[in-house]
Parts: sequence; structure tokens; C-alpha cells
Amino acid sequence: MKTTRLFNFSAGPGTLPLSVLQVVQQHLVSLPGVGMSIMELSHRSSAFEEILGTAEANLRDLMKLPEHYRILFLHGGATLQFSMIPISFLRGTGSVAEYVVSGTWGQKALNEARREGDARVSWTGEKEGFTRAPLPSEINIGADAAYAHLTSNETIQGIQLQDLPLPGTTPMFCDMSSDFLSRAIDIERYALFYAGAQKNAGPAGVTVVVIREDLLERASTDIHTLLDYRVHVAHDSMYNTPPVFAIYVVMLVTQWLRDKIGGLENMGTINEQKSKMLYDVIDQSNGFYRGHARPDSRSRMNVTWHISDDTLATIFARQAQERELVNLNGHRSMGGFRASIYNAMPIQGVRALRDLMLDFQTQYSG
Amino acid sequence: MKTTRLFNFSAGPGTLPLSVLQVVQQHLVSLPGVGMSIMELSHRSSAFEEILGTAEANLRDLMKLPEHYRILFLHGGATLQFSMIPISFLRGTGSVAEYVVSGTWGQKALNEARREGDARVSWTGEKEGFTRAPLPSEINIGADAAYAHLTSNETIQGIQLQDLPLPGTTPMFCDMSSDFLSRAIDIERYALFYAGAQKNAGPAGVTVVVIREDLLERASTDIHTLLDYRVHVAHDSMYNTPPVFAIYVVMLVTQWLRDKIGGLENMGTINEQKSKMLYDVIDQSNGFYRGHARPDSRSRMNVTWHISDDTLATIFARQAQERELVNLNGHRSMGGFRASIYNAMPIQGVRALRDLMLDFQTQYSG
Repeated sequence: MKTTRLFNFSAGPGTLPLSVLQVVQQHLVSLPGVGMSIMELSHRSSAFEEILGTAEANLRDLMKLPEHYRILFLHGGATLQFSMIPISFLRGTGSVAEYVVSGTWGQKALNEARREGDARVSWTGEKEGFTRAPLPSEINIGADAAYAHLTSNETIQGIQLQDLPLPGTTPMFCDMSSDFLSRAIDIERYALFYAGAQKNAGPAGVTVVVIREDLLERASTDIHTLLDYRVHVAHDSMYNTPPVFAIYVVMLVTQWLRDKIGGLENMGTINEQKSKMLYDVIDQSNGFYRGHARPDSRSRMNVTWHISDDTLATIFARQAQERELVNLNGHRSMGGFRASIYNAMPIQGVRALRDLMLDFQTQYSG
Repeated sequence: MKTTRLFNFSAGPGTLPLSVLQVVQQHLVSLPGVGMSIMELSHRSSAFEEILGTAEANLRDLMKLPEHYRILFLHGGATLQFSMIPISFLRGTGSVAEYVVSGTWGQKALNEARREGDARVSWTGEKEGFTRAPLPSEINIGADAAYAHLTSNETIQGIQLQDLPLPGTTPMFCDMSSDFLSRAIDIERYALFYAGAQKNAGPAGVTVVVIREDLLERASTDIHTLLDYRVHVAHDSMYNTPPVFAIYVVMLVTQWLRDKIGGLENMGTINEQKSKMLYDVIDQSNGFYRGHARPDSRSRMNVTWHISDDTLATIFARQAQERELVNLNGHRSMGGFRASIYNAMPIQGVRALRDLMLDFQTQYSG
């Protein structure tokens, strides 16, 4: 039975820092000073309060989050946010919501918003096959909009928005699921943003939501309790039993990010270097590899490409497997290959993939 | 730093089988044959498909679940079910839903149903201070009801419903969060039942929902995607990223229940023995301890009591702590004490608590 670790390029749940996994393992049966597993810990205990508080403080510190933003740890994945947002901020307003559709996830968010009112497409990359992000000047947001919604990184297509100022005064909401904590950003551009933890922040099962306090005043009332941001804020994410274990891992991952990596600026630099290694191979391959995203819109998290001669794909996949590089298949809607190189993917993993791509090209081109 | 394990009487998240925790620990960094942590495993992988399939097969086997029921693993806790049920089965029907309110949780379920339509109280124990469960003959369910909703075990009050046939042909729905898998029951009495895993089935963060297939046809349409049972059934609980780690632990706990305990009949007998040990102390204490629940309604999961002389409560609590028996405080709305003795609480823990109660009475009575 194989118990070594492979390089896991999965789009999510994704790879986690080995040092974090080792701490989880060491304390799994009995958390020091507590006398039980983290999985057995009551969410009403002081030990869990400290874990939740530390996770929040780490996030606040990493993102340099101003006091007037609240951090929530919620159930339901980013997908539940696709619904909670329009239920809270579009329902009953008579106003419109503006959606920027830069890929599959932006489209899914839009679909749920349309159940609650008038959700408009401010920009879509659909006609161009979702190969690029919009320029700020292309995004048309009406002054009457209740909010505008973006997806900062499209996991499936490998498209990433630059952190640019956007026109107007409309509150900006952002799904950051797949590039959360991967770079320093200007937080105050956003009134609300959220991320399923399972790419850069922890295991699947918890979603981090950051919300500017003044937004709560304009949320619609008469919402089911668990879908109401005000309830979660009032109860410090503990209206019902939170996903205790997942929040504990988020605490450890954010500690790793702060103490071992040195924060989001450093992480951003590392992620730029890692992705550049792979994009350079694509760009210097004389067309042997074809990247999906337009160069100015390339994701530093999900690198997507095809081999020009598609008949070579199965051979490439087999060679990757032999080198213990796994989960490189593109999304079923895209085909080709995708390397998800989130924060915790070590540079050694990216180097190993680069070496495979170079060797493979030498072997099979011309 | 203490790394031994205490006896944890928490109402949830609750104690888990030590042998399960040891397996999770052993495989935490790299799952044998997979080469990565369970937390890093893609939900689209064959390895996870096998875990999900095994968890489902274990549950089906334990509950002797007929083919025409489906098992779902959902986000959001039992609390999200309080909303999903009336959204799916009351909204737009023009019909009524009947709620049996045997304690705090039944009341919470009712509150959410009232957002969607006419939700009626079929029976409530409120006037009696939630000290007993209803008799079947007391529950008044109109023939026109879309469904009726029960809470099989009230964690806070320590009230458990007997598994009795109920009048009428109305589909019965049941919140089994705190006695799920604790005894053999007649599954076919219920059209839908659900349980947050964090009492008897695993860690917080996953909810098991069992639904009879024919119900899906009467579910309302135009529901947000993540709140729609039909979507979860159609996607085998993988419409969005499921809580992979929590489902893996549910797989291990259900294996333990089947292979180490020998199934639900055995578990029911053990739980009866464990709870009897504590109720006997209460009944034979000449009023030194006062149980909250009426004897015919006593929960085998949550034993609730007061010390008649309330001034002794802090001394009792301190002595419990000294004997490494923790989380015995009653819910803040109830005061007194509560021992949650779920499936995984070993009989040694219950014996230790019984001994404390006996010793304490000897020391402080008369």
C-alpha cells in the first residue's frame, strides 16, 4: 500500500501544507490541554472559542482587514453564497444586480440571482469561449444596481481577474473561492467576498465570508434563519453547530501562511513564480502546448492547456502518473490539462511538472 | 500539557469511538493507496466515490433501508433541513404542515416552517415544561396535511419519543439528529428523516438525510439549487463539493457500529443499559437528584437532572472535573446537569459518572 505523498494538482479539494497535516495528525486523538479530539470538541467550549478567535485573527491579520468588516465561517460552500447573496440583497428591492460572467462559476452565481429578481449580465466572456477577463472599462454597471458580483478566479477555465478598481459606487461582491489568500489585494474594493476553504484555506466543509457591516442594514428581512447574514453575525458564526474540524484546519493553514510563508505579499510572489514556470514552458513550446487563457488573463492558481496534437494526451497523462504527478486532467467541460497550483503546492511539485512538460515535448515534437 | 482523553459528556459535537479516531490519525497525512490526505482528496476521484459509496452502504445495511429510500450527505446541519423541508413540501401547496413540538428543536423547526405557509402545532409539551413526549393518541394530524414533523429526541430537555406507529396516512418527517443510529427503528414509518452527524455518526459538518423517492415528485419547483432535494438526489450528494472529511469519518463510524458493536439492535440494548445506570441512581436517590423527564419519556441519549439542593451544584461540577468527567453542565436554558451518552460513550465513562453520583450523594445527603 502506497503511503508516500504524490504531487496533487487537484482543483479542489486541493493540496494542503504538509506541516499543517502533521499537526492535525499529531493532535487528532487528543488535543493538548483539552483531552479530546478536535472532532469531539463542543462548539460552546472555551477551547473552540479560542480556535475560532485565532482563525479569525489570523485572517484579519493576513488580509489587513479593517474593523468594519466581519468574518463568518459558514456551511454550504460557495454555492450557498450564490443563493444567500440575492436572497439578502436583491429580493424585494425592485432594483437590479449586475453580474460579471468570466466563466462557469460566474454563470452559476448569476443563475441563482435570477430566482430573486432582475440580474443583469454586465460582461460575459462566453462568446470568446471564456478565454479572458474583462477590462474595468468594459464592465458596465448601472448606478441603480443593488450590487455587482464578480468571480476573481475561474477554476475551470483558468481565468483570473486583476485586482483593479471598478467604475461606480455600487457595492462590489466577489467569489474568491479559488484565489482567496493567494495574493495581497485591496480589500476595501469589496463590500462582501467569500471563499469555499478547499482550495487555499483548508478542507471542504467551511466557507469564509467577509462582509462590510453597513451592508447588514440593507439586507432583506423575513429570510430563513440559516440564510440570514445578520443571524450569523449576531451569533459569531455559531447560530448552529459550525464545522468545528474544518475551522480548526483553517486556523492552522492561516498560521502557516503568516509564520512560514510570511504573509500574502510573499505568497503572491511565490504564486507568480510558480505559475510563470509553467506558462513559460507553454509560451516557449512553439505551439506544442496551447494555453487556454489569454496571457493578460492567466490564472496563477489554475494553469489550463492542451497539447496541440490531441492524440498525445493519454501518453502525457500516463507519464505524469509515472512521475507521481496526479489530478492533471482538465475539467470535463474543457478537456486538456489543468494544473491547480494553490498556495500549498510546493515549488518542487511545479518543477517536476515543468520538467515533465519539457521532456515530453523533446520526446514528441517534430 | 494533558494529552490523555477525558470522558466527554458533551451534547454535540460528542465523543467518537477511539478506534475510529486512531484510524483517522494513522491515515491523516496519506491515505493508503491514494497518496494524499483525505482532506486533499478530490470529490470527483474514484477513491472518494468509494468512500461515499461505502458510507452509504454501511448506513443502508445498519438501518435495513429499503431500495426506495435515498441517502444524502448535505451541508448546513439539521438547521438547514428545518428550512429545506417547508421550502420543498409546504411552499405553494395551499396545504398545512403539522408539527409536534416536544422541546427546543421541534420549536425551531416549526418557526422556519411558518415562513412558508400554514404550520400547525399538533401537540406541544410547552405547558408541561417539556417534560414528556406525546402519546400517539394525543397527536392530532389533519388528513389534509402535506406532512407531519417530529423530533425523535430533544437534546436539551432529554425527552425521547418512542418509535410508535402514528395515526393517519400523512407523510411523517423526523429530526433524528440526537438519536440517529442509536437503536433499531421501523424505518418505513418515515417518509423523510435527517440527522446532523455530530452526535452519533461523525463530526460536525455533514447531515445525513434519508428520503423516500416518491416524495421528490411532490416537491415544489423553482427552489434555489442547493436547497432542492431533487438536485442532491440527481447528483448523488455531489452537486457542489461535499464535506469530504466528515463523510469519511461517517464511513468509519458506521463500520465500527456494524463490525465492533454488531448493529443497531445491539447498540439499542447497550444504550438502554447505559442510560438505566444513571436513571437508577436518580430514582433511588430519595429525591437527592431530580430527573427532568417523566420516566416514560426519558432519553437514552441525554440524561438531564438537577440536584435538589441547588447550592451543591458547583461542588458536584468540581468533583466531576477532578474525576475527568467533563461537559456535564445542563443547557443554559435548563440549568442543572446533562450527561450525553451517545453511542461512542464507553460504559466505563457511564460507570464513572454513576460512581460519582453515588459517592456525592453519600457525602452530601442528610
